[in-house]
Amino acid sequence: MAAVKVYGPPMSTAVARVLACLLEKEVKFQLINVDMAKGKHKSPEYLKIQPFGQVPAFEDEDITLFESRSICRYVCDKYAAQGNKGLYGMNSLVKASIDQWIEAEGQSFNPPSSALVFQLAFAPRMKLKQDPELIKQSEEKLKKVLDIYEKRLGESQFLAGDEFTLADLSHLPNTQYILNKTDRGELFTSRKNVARWWNEISSRESWKKVVEMQSAPPAPKS
Amino acid sequence: MAAVKVYGPPMSTAVARVLACLLEKEVKFQLINVDMAKGKHKSPEYLKIQPFGQVPAFEDEDITLFESRSICRYVCDKYAAQGNKGLYGMNSLVKASIDQWIEAEGQSFNPPSSALVFQLAFAPRMKLKQDPELIKQSEEKLKKVLDIYEKRLGESQFLAGDEFTLADLSHLPNTQYILNKTDRGELFTSRKNVARWWNEISSRESWKKVVEMQSAPPAPKS
Repeated sequence: MAAVKVYGPPMSTAVARVLACLLEKEVKFQLINVDMAKGKHKSPEYLKIQPFGQVPAFEDEDITLFESRSICRYVCDKYAAQGNKGLYGMNSLVKASIDQWIEAEGQSFNPPSSALVFQLAFAPRMKLKQDPELIKQSEEKLKKVLDIYEKRLGESQFLAGDEFTLADLSHLPNTQYILNKTDRGELFTSRKNVARWWNEISSRESWKKVVEMQSAPPAPKS
Repeated sequence: MAAVKVYGPPMSTAVARVLACLLEKEVKFQLINVDMAKGKHKSPEYLKIQPFGQVPAFEDEDITLFESRSICRYVCDKYAAQGNKGLYGMNSLVKASIDQWIEAEGQSFNPPSSALVFQLAFAPRMKLKQDPELIKQSEEKLKKVLDIYEKRLGESQFLAGDEFTLADLSHLPNTQYILNKTDRGELFTSRKNVARWWNEISSRESWKKVVEMQSAPPAPKS
């Protein structure tokens, strides 16, 4: 089996989501850095596989794909028989339940959490001005989402039931940064069930490996 | 086959997305209004099936679901053998390509287009103050997305290839409002391929039926 290719730096939350999925599924991959500081994500070659000029892009034998959550769904379907077999469910009802929580992450959790990550962790490093109003609004929105998660995680061990799935995995990258690169970790640690859930999902070997990759020197450049 | 249940008003873009999918798939459904003006979407009963207190919620024999795009994926998988059989692809590669464009809609197209719909069409009706800065930013973001679509739709007839799929369908509700309830329709009509695409996808019988439902009196209340 030839390795699949992932384009983009592991410190990108969307790239990290795909890497965690590939590690859970034990799919061999080659990580190809895209030098975003040099604008390589806007080069004509790269735009052919990722028309939005974002990371990640993904290549397997017959297909190129973008959008991290779609790449994860594809990886789980294509490599169903290997690695963590239940990651995207073993039947259509479980799969639908996982899918709705992936969408909840994409539509409700990601917008405020990625805004907080950018504003509090990346903007200062990039010497960009922070937007206090956006920070405040994002924190309020994220609190409401986490209150819903707190209730849900009191009823089941993980979001889509009693197994770790792609729905939980999808939350790892933003949550990792909020807890470790901002001063708002209390949003998670102050909620009993959310805190328990975070401890479980972030201690998976797959995720620990991604966090290691995030602090390693960059892969060869494309 | 008992009818599936959809909770929510057809004028909601997320509800309209699910209705268009059910009509394409020729799945019988019962539409149950949720009186949002009276706060029924925040009632304890409703929150049991839709913990975020949003519309739509969905019930089929063995499952309740939320998140419109996940409901659509489920409907296409469960009712694969009926109605428009290619709506979510007939093999895993086509499905992955459709899925990435559904994600592009959810992550890149929906945020600016739904902000424009709310600010320009709903806020005035609800006597809410408009946010000129948000309108301007959303318009800029949507232009960039539509430039990418313009290029893509010069290469293939529809977003995921040469067939109408769930990826195109997912764009109908917001685009309908922008063209018919705001003065920014030119964003679409001024782009040759996007305009051609919009004419094709909006003239499907399924969508014309949804637009009719949007102007009909509300269904019985839950």
